[in-house]
Amino acid sequence: MSGGYDIPAALRESATTRYSASEEEAVLDWFAARNRSASARIREVPLSELQGWSIAPETGNLRHDSGKFFSVGGIAVKHRAGTPAQWTQPIIHQPEVGVLGILVRVVDGALQCLMQAKLEPGNHNGVQLSPTVQATRSNYQRVHGGFAVPYLEHFFDAPPHRTLVDVLQSEHASWCHRKRNRNMVVLVDEDVEVREGFRWFTVGQIHQLLARDGLVNMCSRTVLACLLGCHAPRDDTPGAHSTAELLRWVNATRAECTASTDLIPFTDIEGWDTPAGAAAQTPGRTFDIVGVDVKMGDREVAQWNQPLLRPRKRGIAAFIVKPVRGIPHALVHARFEPGNLQNIELSPTVEAADGAAPAGERPLFLDDVLRAPRERRLFDTEMAEEGGRYMHARSRHLVVAAQEDDFTDTPQDYRWISLPQMSRLLRHSHYWGISARSLIGCLHALNASAVLG
Amino acid sequence: MSGGYDIPAALRESATTRYSASEEEAVLDWFAARNRSASARIREVPLSELQGWSIAPETGNLRHDSGKFFSVGGIAVKHRAGTPAQWTQPIIHQPEVGVLGILVRVVDGALQCLMQAKLEPGNHNGVQLSPTVQATRSNYQRVHGGFAVPYLEHFFDAPPHRTLVDVLQSEHASWCHRKRNRNMVVLVDEDVEVREGFRWFTVGQIHQLLARDGLVNMCSRTVLACLLGCHAPRDDTPGAHSTAELLRWVNATRAECTASTDLIPFTDIEGWDTPAGAAAQTPGRTFDIVGVDVKMGDREVAQWNQPLLRPRKRGIAAFIVKPVRGIPHALVHARFEPGNLQNIELSPTVEAADGAAPAGERPLFLDDVLRAPRERRLFDTEMAEEGGRYMHARSRHLVVAAQEDDFTDTPQDYRWISLPQMSRLLRHSHYWGISARSLIGCLHALNASAVLG
Repeated sequence: MSGGYDIPAALRESATTRYSASEEEAVLDWFAARNRSASARIREVPLSELQGWSIAPETGNLRHDSGKFFSVGGIAVKHRAGTPAQWTQPIIHQPEVGVLGILVRVVDGALQCLMQAKLEPGNHNGVQLSPTVQATRSNYQRVHGGFAVPYLEHFFDAPPHRTLVDVLQSEHASWCHRKRNRNMVVLVDEDVEVREGFRWFTVGQIHQLLARDGLVNMCSRTVLACLLGCHAPRDDTPGAHSTAELLRWVNATRAECTASTDLIPFTDIEGWDTPAGAAAQTPGRTFDIVGVDVKMGDREVAQWNQPLLRPRKRGIAAFIVKPVRGIPHALVHARFEPGNLQNIELSPTVEAADGAAPAGERPLFLDDVLRAPRERRLFDTEMAEEGGRYMHARSRHLVVAAQEDDFTDTPQDYRWISLPQMSRLLRHSHYWGISARSLIGCLHALNASAVLG
Repeated sequence: MSGGYDIPAALRESATTRYSASEEEAVLDWFAARNRSASARIREVPLSELQGWSIAPETGNLRHDSGKFFSVGGIAVKHRAGTPAQWTQPIIHQPEVGVLGILVRVVDGALQCLMQAKLEPGNHNGVQLSPTVQATRSNYQRVHGGFAVPYLEHFFDAPPHRTLVDVLQSEHASWCHRKRNRNMVVLVDEDVEVREGFRWFTVGQIHQLLARDGLVNMCSRTVLACLLGCHAPRDDTPGAHSTAELLRWVNATRAECTASTDLIPFTDIEGWDTPAGAAAQTPGRTFDIVGVDVKMGDREVAQWNQPLLRPRKRGIAAFIVKPVRGIPHALVHARFEPGNLQNIELSPTVEAADGAAPAGERPLFLDDVLRAPRERRLFDTEMAEEGGRYMHARSRHLVVAAQEDDFTDTPQDYRWISLPQMSRLLRHSHYWGISARSLIGCLHALNASAVLG
C-alpha cells in the first residue's frame, strides 16, 4: 500500500486500459496541435561560434562557460577482447545527476501517468511523449537563469511512501561517460493542475503509443520500464537460470573483463582535431559533434546554443525472445561500453549500428534478427534517443521470437533471462543499460501480464 | 540444490557446529604452531629505497616497476556537507580485481570452509585466519615470477552450480580508490588435498574465533558475510522499512550527494611532498605511507619490498542494534568516502578513528557507542584490517544494544535496516562498505538464526 492505494493492482488495471481507435485518434490530434504550437527553430552553427560555450585551449575540450551542464572531451579505450582492441573517441561528460520523473495518480483503480508533449532540440520529429520532468541539475537549479521546471517540487518533497520509483540508471555509455539519471515515479493526489502540453495516460495507452515510430521518448521508456519492474511481484518459477546464478554471472563477467579506459584531452583523440573539426568525413567515424542555435517558444529559456552528438547511422536494438518452461525469456548480452560506471551492463541480444558490416565483423545474432520472417517480429518500431544531447538519433527496436530449443548454446557473455527476472533487477542501479531498459519497456507492452501477474 | 546439496540446510547446520573448549584449545595450538613456523622478517625501509618500486618524477606517485600490483597517488575531494568541506590525501590505486575465495565442502550435512593461517607483511600479530585464496590478479598471474597460488584453479574452473558466492565488493574507500575484490565461495568434493597451513572450519567455529582479537582476518570476514547473506532465505516480515523503500533511500542519497573527487599527482597533495616524505609529523594526518622489506619462508616469493598504508590511530566500527517488531535491526549510515565507485556505500552506525575528537567534531552516535554499559555491548573485539596493504591497521568492532524506542528520530542519511535485509543485499555489489560487511559478519555470529532461519 502506497498513499492508501494498492499499487500493483492499480498498475495491472492501468496496463489493460487502452485507447479505442477514436480515442487514439484524438490523442494523435493533440500531438499534432502541440507540434504546431511548439514553435521552434533549430539552426546548425559551427562549434567555435556557440554562444556560452568555448573550446579550452589546453585540451580542446568543449565546455559551457558556467562550468555546468555538460562538456565534450576524449576517452582512450583498451579492450583486448574487442574489435578493435583499442581506440580513442569523443565522449560527453555530465557528472551531475538529472531527474527523469513521472507523476502518477490513481483514478477508478487505474494508475495514470502525467506526461508531456515535449520538444528537444535534437528531436527529428517534433514533440515526443516525455516524462513529467526531464531535467539536469543545472536545468532545475536554473543555471541558465530561466523559468523554474514545472512539477519539479513534487519530486524533491515527496514523502517516502509516495515515491514509487527512485533508482539511478545509466545513459548511452558509448556516448556519455558515467552519465546517470534518477528515474523517479511519485504518486500525487488527483487534483494536481494539468498545465498546457501535459496530459494523463494509462500505462496501457503509453504501451499503445510505443508502437508508433518515434513518439514515446527515451526518458519515458526507461522510467516506465523501472515503474513496472519495481512493482513486479516476486516470481520464483524456475526459468533458465536462478536469479542468484545470474547475479554471479554478471559479477564474474565484470571481474574478468580487463577493458580499461582513460579520459584524455579532445586534442589527443586520433583523427579528430578539435570538436570544431568534428564533422570531417573520416571513415570509421560513427558520430559527429555538431552545434545548434535553438529558439523555442515554451521552454525555461527562449534561446540558447549547445552542442549535440549526431550519430551517422541509425542503431539497432533487438531482443531474441523465447519461452523457457512457459515463461518468456530474452537473450541478454553482458557488454562492455567505455562510459559504463562498471565495465559492463546488460544489453540487448544485438546492439549495433544499422547498415552493412563486412562479413567477420558483423555482431553476433545480427543476421538472426534481421532475417527473421515478419511473423516472428513481435515488435519492430523506430525509437528516438534523447533529444537534449543527441541529434536525430534513432534506433530500430526489434523483438524477435524464437523456439524453446533455438539458441541453447550461447557464448559465455550471453544468458537467457526471464521477463520477471529482468523486471525485478530494475530495482537496482547499473544492471541494465539504456537500450535494454528501453526494450524491456517494449516487452512489457507486449506482455505486461507476464510481469504484473 | 547446489552440487547435490541443500546449501541453506548445510549452512544452518554449520553455523550451529561449534568447538568444545578442548577443541578450541587445539585450534589455538595449531595457530601458535603456524606462527612459529611462519618465519618472517619485516623491516621498515625508506620508500625511496624500495626494490622494484620507484617514484615517478613528474607526479611523485609511487609505482611498481612492472606497472602492476598497485600504486600510490593523490586525490582531491570536494564535499560541501563534510568536515572539512575539501581536502587532498594520498590514495592507493589498484585497478585490478583480486580474488578472495573460500573453498567449502559438506560433511555430515554441515558446510565446512577451507581456511589458512596466513601471514601478511602488515599483520600486527603474526598469522591470521584467511580465506583459501586471497590474491590480486598480479599475484595469481605471477607477475612476481614466484610459485602458483594454491587452490586458485578451483575458483576459475568452478561450474556455476558449485559457485555459491561470486560478488564484487569494495575495500576501504578512505584508503583505496575504487578497489574491488571478487568475493567467492566454491563447493568442492570432500577429497580435496589439505595443504600445510590449511584446515577445515565450520561457520560456527569461525564465528567462535571472531570473538578473539585480531584472529579472523578482514578478507575472511567479508567473504563469510557474503556467504551467509547470499543464502539467506527471503524474509518479508515487515521491519522498520520495506526493502523497496531502502533501495529508494540509497538511490536518493546517492543522487543528492554532491561530493566530487579528482585524482591528482602525489606532489599536489597538501602537506605531503613525495611518498618518501610521508612519515613526517604533520598534525591532522590520519595515516602514513611506509616501506617494508619482507622475507617470508612460505610464500610464492621468499623476499620482496612494498609500501604499506599505516593508520595513526585504531579505528572504531560500531552498529547500534535494536529489535523492531521482534526482528533485529541495525542503524546504518549512508556515507560518502572518496574511493567509493559510487559516492556512498552503507556503513556502520559509527565509523571513525579511535581517540578524542574535539567537541563539535565528534562523529554522530560515537558517544552513545563508547559510553554504552558493558551489558549492552553484545560484541567488542579488535579486528585486523587487511595486512597486504595496511600496516598494523586495526579497528574495534562493537555491537551495542538499544531499546526498540531508542533512536527513532534519526538523520536523513541513517536508516534502521533489519538483519535479513542487510544479508540479502550482500548478493549485490556496492551496497555495503567493507566495515559494514565485517560487522555484519559479527552480527551473524551473534544471531545466525535470524539470518539463516
